[in-house]
Amino acid sequence: MSQPLSAAVDLIVLGGMILTLNEANDIHQDGALAIRKDTIVAVGPRPEILARFSAATVLDYAADIILPGLINAHTHAAMTCFRGLADDLPLEVWLNDYIFPAERQISRDLVYWGTKLAIAEMLLSGTTTFCDMYLFADAVAQAAREAGMRAVVGEVLYDFPSANYGPKDNGLRFTEELIQTWRHDPLIRVAVQPHAVYTCSPDLLKRCGELAERHDTRLIIHLSETRQEVADCQQHYGASPVEHLFNLGLLNTRLVADHGVALSHHDQDLLAAQGVSVVHCPESNMKLASGVAPIVSLLAKGVNVALGTDGCASNNNLDLFQEMDTAAKLHKVYHLDPTVMSASTVLHLTTVSGARALNLHDRIGSLEPGKQADLIVIDCDRPHLTPMYQPYSQLVYAAMGADVRTVVIAGRPVVQDRRLLTLDVEEAMAKVREYARQIKAKVEPR
Amino acid sequence: MSQPLSAAVDLIVLGGMILTLNEANDIHQDGALAIRKDTIVAVGPRPEILARFSAATVLDYAADIILPGLINAHTHAAMTCFRGLADDLPLEVWLNDYIFPAERQISRDLVYWGTKLAIAEMLLSGTTTFCDMYLFADAVAQAAREAGMRAVVGEVLYDFPSANYGPKDNGLRFTEELIQTWRHDPLIRVAVQPHAVYTCSPDLLKRCGELAERHDTRLIIHLSETRQEVADCQQHYGASPVEHLFNLGLLNTRLVADHGVALSHHDQDLLAAQGVSVVHCPESNMKLASGVAPIVSLLAKGVNVALGTDGCASNNNLDLFQEMDTAAKLHKVYHLDPTVMSASTVLHLTTVSGARALNLHDRIGSLEPGKQADLIVIDCDRPHLTPMYQPYSQLVYAAMGADVRTVVIAGRPVVQDRRLLTLDVEEAMAKVREYARQIKAKVEPR
Repeated sequence: MSQPLSAAVDLIVLGGMILTLNEANDIHQDGALAIRKDTIVAVGPRPEILARFSAATVLDYAADIILPGLINAHTHAAMTCFRGLADDLPLEVWLNDYIFPAERQISRDLVYWGTKLAIAEMLLSGTTTFCDMYLFADAVAQAAREAGMRAVVGEVLYDFPSANYGPKDNGLRFTEELIQTWRHDPLIRVAVQPHAVYTCSPDLLKRCGELAERHDTRLIIHLSETRQEVADCQQHYGASPVEHLFNLGLLNTRLVADHGVALSHHDQDLLAAQGVSVVHCPESNMKLASGVAPIVSLLAKGVNVALGTDGCASNNNLDLFQEMDTAAKLHKVYHLDPTVMSASTVLHLTTVSGARALNLHDRIGSLEPGKQADLIVIDCDRPHLTPMYQPYSQLVYAAMGADVRTVVIAGRPVVQDRRLLTLDVEEAMAKVREYARQIKAKVEPR
Repeated sequence: MSQPLSAAVDLIVLGGMILTLNEANDIHQDGALAIRKDTIVAVGPRPEILARFSAATVLDYAADIILPGLINAHTHAAMTCFRGLADDLPLEVWLNDYIFPAERQISRDLVYWGTKLAIAEMLLSGTTTFCDMYLFADAVAQAAREAGMRAVVGEVLYDFPSANYGPKDNGLRFTEELIQTWRHDPLIRVAVQPHAVYTCSPDLLKRCGELAERHDTRLIIHLSETRQEVADCQQHYGASPVEHLFNLGLLNTRLVADHGVALSHHDQDLLAAQGVSVVHCPESNMKLASGVAPIVSLLAKGVNVALGTDGCASNNNLDLFQEMDTAAKLHKVYHLDPTVMSASTVLHLTTVSGARALNLHDRIGSLEPGKQADLIVIDCDRPHLTPMYQPYSQLVYAAMGADVRTVVIAGRPVVQDRRLLTLDVEEAMAKVREYARQIKAKVEPR
């Protein structure tokens, strides 16, 4: 009898350790992944995979950790242009004297290049999917698509005129066109993204909700980021921001609430009961002194919590490895309990739960047959990653973005051995430096 | 008339920006440093330095930031061997079931190789000086000396027998010999390092103080790290740990208090009045859920505060860039005030104030003529460090250890273009991996 031929796939990736983050949290020592086109067809022990499959391209990372690509569930990518423009300032001064004047100069071109730079930073540090809220979201989508990066984008919507679409009514139309343009794209999804309850009238919020419903997209909003926001909302509407959205009929599984810092227990119960996802942005909340989001409590109530970096003006980088480290440590000291927010919990927020928040959990978030091949390879042959007792701990508490060696998105290597294959990083840096020179000429950095 | 000849120096380093961190915080755009043997002879604008000096070796980092080497003012370097052995556990379980059993296996060889690995990690991430407390401090000193790294070392002293020196009385003798051995070394200093008030009797503490006084060394101790320590001390001695040391006559400029988390206002006033330095270890305090040290208050009272990573079992890396970022952000959110702990403040803790804590401020901490040439070069041509508005902000909020390109200690390049010149990092990793295998066989990681 002849030997059965092995099935042809496009790519096989070998790893010293593969963290699947599947339901059972299976870890394959000396594992392998078989990938056909954009999809994982098998993951398991290396001998088994190599016996079943053959591929023209085999990437061998025998000493390294392979895990699902990280998901940055809330950012404003183009704000790389304002990274470090102004720090350590009271919130009003920061916004009114620096960020708003700088954003007045915003153009589609600035957003495109600022996003390209952010994508370079994110890919090189292991993020394979980001959810972006900003002006000129078409430019964000274009930049991500060109770089082969997965993204959920949305035009930021508010009552006042936008540098992109002009008067507020155009914003919904712009968003609807964006949804239609990208409807069949394999990497880009569009969400409806009203800015916040203090910048959007109830009428605008309701129309946003209807648009999201009509096109079955996520509805994403900054929610209860500061105590001030909650106090103002109470004064205007006699309700917390969460209650306000509930009253408007917008609190449901479609909704993604960014930040969720100042949440009462009643707010938290509402979010849990209605199946709302919350995106935790600890470094931004710390740097802007907004407060500590009640993530441990939200998780206990069963809320789906994802992790985000927020924009570079309030972080000031997009490194999810540092963000995971901070998330784990912040809640331990806040609760004076070292057992909360374990490394495993935090890694799940940044993969599985991020995918769920963005309604992509059937496609990404774990390494399983049938899912998209979005994976990252961590170079473990580094002093600060030696020795290795426990991979989750190592990734959350010791690793940094620079330890990412290779990144595959939808089966396509976009970073290989720390080299970006899908965008010209020097060009993006040069363009953003030029924008920074223009910004500096009008806004004095401090 | 003939042109005056330029003076010969050994090394000239050119930088896009030199942050001196001198009294005036001078920054030289397109600057240069002239170095003779181990000492800075001049720092200033590039044309001026190049006109005045010539050197056989010129290192040109025209696009990069140069700053004083960072100072890790409290660590247990050899605990790299236990990095990630056990995390997210209650303190007693972590100590009793993991760290103490693992430390029972400690040998001089383990400490030597664990320290070598730590040194590799520290040098590659921009730390030029570390202050270490551990067993087999002679091995720590040897490892640092061989790698050309500056260190203050001390044998950890307590009432119970030590795996190194045996019964407690030998500890003081061992320390005194260590002081004598390294007395004239240009890089290594020895300090007297009793472990804590709960592990050292008043008698031992007093004898430690006398030894430090006799040899004019620093006296370094874990102090008020946890609320439990304070409660226990109150119960035993009717005094807080700070008051207890005051009562023993040990509170003076010689003393360095590591952690200082649980400090009353009276404690803080005592530390300020007596000129004690405090070493802040925010990431360890967060991860072990010890609490938030009152650093903003201590600084307002005029206390000299330095920064440390603590050991790798409670951090889990030795990257001072991440530690600075966390330090700045933690206090902002703790005080709900974004203006506290500015980037500049935090960078000063990690350089100038670290030097002062270790009684090395006449030699290191800033880039000034007459000081030791301990400097680091930050590769700014990276996406996450683009654009550049403000160097302090960029270093604290956006940079990471992996951005360090070159490191010079006492005029000698020890890292050049990310390559370690003074130790075999592969060998150190292999040795520590072997120790980890032995540890794993006896202690189940989790």
